[in-house]
Amino acid sequence: MAESSKPGLFVHHVFFWMKNPGSEADKNKLVEGLNTLIDIPGYITAHIGYPADTTRPVIDRSYAISWLLVFNNGEEEATYQTHPTHVKFVEDYAYLWERVVVYDSVGPKL
Amino acid sequence: MAESSKPGLFVHHVFFWMKNPGSEADKNKLVEGLNTLIDIPGYITAHIGYPADTTRPVIDRSYAISWLLVFNNGEEEATYQTHPTHVKFVEDYAYLWERVVVYDSVGPKL
Repeated sequence: MAESSKPGLFVHHVFFWMKNPGSEADKNKLVEGLNTLIDIPGYITAHIGYPADTTRPVIDRSYAISWLLVFNNGEEEATYQTHPTHVKFVEDYAYLWERVVVYDSVGPKL
Repeated sequence: MAESSKPGLFVHHVFFWMKNPGSEADKNKLVEGLNTLIDIPGYITAHIGYPADTTRPVIDRSYAISWLLVFNNGEEEATYQTHPTHVKFVEDYAYLWERVVVYDSVGPKL
């Protein structure tokens, strides 16, 4: 059965726009921070991303870094949010970003 | 090794805003269409999502339906884009949505 059929799977996708978009050092610093989150237990999949080279009009390539986590359910994601390592990540690295947009998706409704 | 360490993994995440946001029938119709895409070979993970009940200010809950695919690389995603089932999905279901935003992410750069 396709993974899309799992009820309740929780997808947490974060997009970061940087204060200094031209700074590779700042992007690397943020990736360093995201790598600290990988040690937090409880997720199924983690992915650090950069905009791909696809360029259709519907594609938003304006962000600098993306951060995807897939959880079994929303409770696991809530635990991640309050984990000390996550709290410390925000404290230590928030100075790097200008804007963050988060998409939290669950599904399907069965 | 965490999945985030796989070089080149390609994340394709689509968010749909509906022409008739209040219509559950339209949302169900779109989900019907997305389910036709599940039979296209070549992806690692597929997920159909609805906005979760998380409500922090950074969270965008304005979309109706999300569609996540994870591929091993961008070539696989390009093949998916031109697959007849995907082309037919756009032809048959595009009347349902007002706006689509796509985030294509690859990473990490090693």
